[in-house]
Amino acid sequence: MSPITEQRAGVFGLQVGIAGCGKVGTSLALALTQAGVAVSAVYSRTLNRAEQLATLVNAAIYHPQKSELSLPKVDVWIVAVNDDNISEVVHLLHQGFPESLIAHTSGGCDTIQLQPLHPRVGVFYPLQTFSEFRLLDWSEIPVFVSSMHESDTAVLHALASTITMKAVEIKEEDRAIIHLAAVFINNFVNAMSAIALDILKQKKLDFYLLMPLLDETVEKIRLSDPLNAQTGPAMRGDLQTIERHLGLLNQFPSEYKEVYQTVSALITKYLRKDP
Amino acid sequence: MSPITEQRAGVFGLQVGIAGCGKVGTSLALALTQAGVAVSAVYSRTLNRAEQLATLVNAAIYHPQKSELSLPKVDVWIVAVNDDNISEVVHLLHQGFPESLIAHTSGGCDTIQLQPLHPRVGVFYPLQTFSEFRLLDWSEIPVFVSSMHESDTAVLHALASTITMKAVEIKEEDRAIIHLAAVFINNFVNAMSAIALDILKQKKLDFYLLMPLLDETVEKIRLSDPLNAQTGPAMRGDLQTIERHLGLLNQFPSEYKEVYQTVSALITKYLRKDP
Repeated sequence: MSPITEQRAGVFGLQVGIAGCGKVGTSLALALTQAGVAVSAVYSRTLNRAEQLATLVNAAIYHPQKSELSLPKVDVWIVAVNDDNISEVVHLLHQGFPESLIAHTSGGCDTIQLQPLHPRVGVFYPLQTFSEFRLLDWSEIPVFVSSMHESDTAVLHALASTITMKAVEIKEEDRAIIHLAAVFINNFVNAMSAIALDILKQKKLDFYLLMPLLDETVEKIRLSDPLNAQTGPAMRGDLQTIERHLGLLNQFPSEYKEVYQTVSALITKYLRKDP
Repeated sequence: MSPITEQRAGVFGLQVGIAGCGKVGTSLALALTQAGVAVSAVYSRTLNRAEQLATLVNAAIYHPQKSELSLPKVDVWIVAVNDDNISEVVHLLHQGFPESLIAHTSGGCDTIQLQPLHPRVGVFYPLQTFSEFRLLDWSEIPVFVSSMHESDTAVLHALASTITMKAVEIKEEDRAIIHLAAVFINNFVNAMSAIALDILKQKKLDFYLLMPLLDETVEKIRLSDPLNAQTGPAMRGDLQTIERHLGLLNQFPSEYKEVYQTVSALITKYLRKDP
């Protein structure tokens, strides 16, 4: 039997636990269940949420305080909680499951700092922004996996492959870089939109008239290189328009102007073809 | 006959000229022609481009130097050239067409400064980013119109309505605000993507793994208010992650770090729900 077949066969025999019943944990539990992977246990600090998700995917609830009760079998725990709480949850899971593989879903968490808490730790990082009440197609979501042991990485890779076509093994330092890039793509793109919305809102203009422009901006990024697709007053070196915009920005929070100036300076310095 | 019917009837009798055969002018000439509006004349500083577009839409070419030749009838000229060249082109068109309505397509151009050049000037501003070799669906593109005379505005509104469902009359000061917001939505969103691309490229990581995240970021903006949808380390007040990212950014151009700090400061100050 080839190693790949063994891994695949192993995944469907695996029992997975989900720790954290927020947007990521819930979405992941549903996607795994739908893919035929057994979610055998659920943990949440909020018992109510654990109960809801456990019912949904037919799993047991793990109570760290009641570990004398019979525990479900869990081969892989996936910890989908805020970065600040990962250590605490790994510590709790270690008590009941000292031999399980425990992987967190964070882009930013430093996995090495978890090693003193548990011998088998890893990463199962889905590169996506999750919302409540919104079903996502996992098949296109990249899931970055890594661990300290090759065999554990293979298990996480195979597990990710049950729900996505884009399971990718990644080095710790590269995950940090991807998370950094994701902040620009997700958080900062949203912030630019929030500024635009607020500017229009204050003038009683309709933000949604800008949606076709945002859609086309993204299409251009998809079809060509954003480094070459840059346009706008800073790109053209159109100082008159920039001055007019800075004047208009005086009526808004001063941070909007600072963002305008800083991003324009970047465009002028790095993205202009003929500076 | 109601005024609306008169306007509509009038539009289809109108002869339109397109000055500037770049991305906007070409796309507009094709959309108008497809909508059944007669494009009777084309002007470009580059004769070659004028010839190409004139052939495509079956129009005459306007040569300012040869204005002794018989001129085509043009009721409305649309001037789709760079902001810096609008005055010059309006001046040229005025010589051959002293009575035509002349509207520019710029978000930023101050229309009032064109009035000394020509008695009937106006705005026909499509809020979109145009690319060569990419056909756009004009029906969803907002076109903002205005002029000094109500009747001219009505003509421009009716003309816009032949190609889009979103023809909008706009005050001069509001157009400037929309253009400012468009810089954030288009130019700055592209700049955030360009930074992300460059960071990944330098580390030999695949930018296109980020596309589902960018798509979902935009879907969230479409479905909810970006002012309420903000996430990320700055939003959470996660100083540890911010510090780590600033450290990583030291290996890239210093402007990337400045953008990260400026946008994070904005998020922390304006977008956090519980600062």
